[in-house]
Amino acid sequence: MSTLVNQQILLVSRPDGEPATDNFKLVSTPVPEPAEGQVLVRHHYLSLDPYMRGRMSEGKSYAQPQPLDAVMIGGTVGEVIASKHPQFAPGDKVVGMGGWQEYAVVDATQRGLLRKVDTTHIPLAAYLGAVGMPGVTAWYGLVKIIEPKAGETVVVSAASGAVGGTVGQLAKARGARIVGIAGGPDKCRQVVEELGFDACVDYKAHAGVAALSAALKAACPNGIDGYFENVGGVILDAVMANANAFCRIAVCGMISGYNGEPIPMAAPQLILTNRMKIEGFIVGEHMAVWPQALGELGAMVAQGQLKYRETVAQGIAAAPQAFLGLLKGRNFGKQLVKLV
Amino acid sequence: MSTLVNQQILLVSRPDGEPATDNFKLVSTPVPEPAEGQVLVRHHYLSLDPYMRGRMSEGKSYAQPQPLDAVMIGGTVGEVIASKHPQFAPGDKVVGMGGWQEYAVVDATQRGLLRKVDTTHIPLAAYLGAVGMPGVTAWYGLVKIIEPKAGETVVVSAASGAVGGTVGQLAKARGARIVGIAGGPDKCRQVVEELGFDACVDYKAHAGVAALSAALKAACPNGIDGYFENVGGVILDAVMANANAFCRIAVCGMISGYNGEPIPMAAPQLILTNRMKIEGFIVGEHMAVWPQALGELGAMVAQGQLKYRETVAQGIAAAPQAFLGLLKGRNFGKQLVKLV
Repeated sequence: MSTLVNQQILLVSRPDGEPATDNFKLVSTPVPEPAEGQVLVRHHYLSLDPYMRGRMSEGKSYAQPQPLDAVMIGGTVGEVIASKHPQFAPGDKVVGMGGWQEYAVVDATQRGLLRKVDTTHIPLAAYLGAVGMPGVTAWYGLVKIIEPKAGETVVVSAASGAVGGTVGQLAKARGARIVGIAGGPDKCRQVVEELGFDACVDYKAHAGVAALSAALKAACPNGIDGYFENVGGVILDAVMANANAFCRIAVCGMISGYNGEPIPMAAPQLILTNRMKIEGFIVGEHMAVWPQALGELGAMVAQGQLKYRETVAQGIAAAPQAFLGLLKGRNFGKQLVKLV
Repeated sequence: MSTLVNQQILLVSRPDGEPATDNFKLVSTPVPEPAEGQVLVRHHYLSLDPYMRGRMSEGKSYAQPQPLDAVMIGGTVGEVIASKHPQFAPGDKVVGMGGWQEYAVVDATQRGLLRKVDTTHIPLAAYLGAVGMPGVTAWYGLVKIIEPKAGETVVVSAASGAVGGTVGQLAKARGARIVGIAGGPDKCRQVVEELGFDACVDYKAHAGVAALSAALKAACPNGIDGYFENVGGVILDAVMANANAFCRIAVCGMISGYNGEPIPMAAPQLILTNRMKIEGFIVGEHMAVWPQALGELGAMVAQGQLKYRETVAQGIAAAPQAFLGLLKGRNFGKQLVKLV
């Protein structure tokens, strides 16, 4: 055990605007033996998610910034290879927040840090996507904020992403008409043909609020009743221009402003004239809903009713580049790094 | 009866930008006899409210525009002088939507058009203010959207207005620290000394978002947990810059944009980072809460626990000028037109 080497990626500097690979550094350290109550996990997959961009900066946000010269935060799935905790045994498949590294020693006495998962009907990697944090994020924003009714129109931006794709399918299962917004014809085709959306608007083909608003109007002939926001900026303005009375907007992300660009909302008076509700949320603050959400998501994946795509980078060294690609929308579906 | 003359004010043109007195016209018409089921009301007071500005325009809003060459819409209180409906008798004091005119013939068979009120402990005019639509507006936004907890800080713009003053006192009664925003030292003094606010920020003394934000920070050392929005624009930006996590914003009005000025929201990403909820509402769509709200407001006024001020114009001919003054913030408290 003591001969194992752990490759880790540290955050070594904070981005000024757009992040770059030199904000990160790959290091090798020996894998420590687990102490009493601890579990040694070998990571199979590392999750890459947009929220990590926020953690790289020092600015005021909902979470503490990622410390410098420490292993980057991140969700992980893997296999227990040594355990000094009675509830975990070698061979157990587990999900946790192991960070950007090949191995992690986890204090299993702390509730919630490590969770055993069943891979009989659900692939291990899905616990980082549709049956994990992104899935619950989609579920919370849709079910608890948008609360779609059958026959309503729900729009989601970044529709081909891990969260957006799930939002659409959950809304569809509730009888809503579901319209995606994504970048490029390939993503839009996948959103409609693979994920079953009713329509998808390519924001890159409709530059500016007026053009995008017209394209959304064509895709949403009955207006927009609910919107799941991952992007912000011009896309939010175009959606608001098509909002129906009592439209609900769940704000999950505003990736268009993550590098500090100004992203003003053009017409907040629409909140009043349309009696809209706009609500931001962080899924980690709503742990009470996770069991219900994971139950629905897990059942749908196990029964093949919830489709998802993965973009998989190979090896820990590829993580920074894959993360930068995610921020630029180069991934299809869930962005993973495969380690084993 | 047939010799009575009714002076009425019609909307005869729509404003292009700022409204002017020539958008209105005073006419005299004979007062008709009430038919079966109808009631003839002599108006004592006419209510002037910011929402009327929206009705003057043709643009998409939550309500149908006011038709041209028709009597301007508006709340009224008065006395029944003739009745052909069994539930109303001459001498009854009533509140209704009689419009900008001295008399109205009301179809009392239509539920909700006319309501008898008790003036034993509550002055008749208060049914157009603290114990009327503005009071219920304050109550709904505060109680149903902001939901203040004791010890929280609630901010309200247009704090010296009929709605704003009531918001503050209702929040104070619930144990919140209450901070107003108003224009000019006189209004700010009145808000604190007469209405009992903990502090009031003079937005005219702090031009620009940065200065206003700093003034709000000084007045709200623990940040802002709830905000009742009547104005929008720079004031909203300055409030959002001081918002705490889980801040709730009830959007009742955005008077700074009523003449078509752009009023972008500078930093909507704060909705996410602070997990804010922003919700627009129209009090007329929530009739179910009116009895509860009017019950609380009426009891507070009758017991002298809810203070309010009135600015009273004299005579129907003064209504247009008084309305334009209201839009410019020249009134203190509720703007009325006294007809009798």
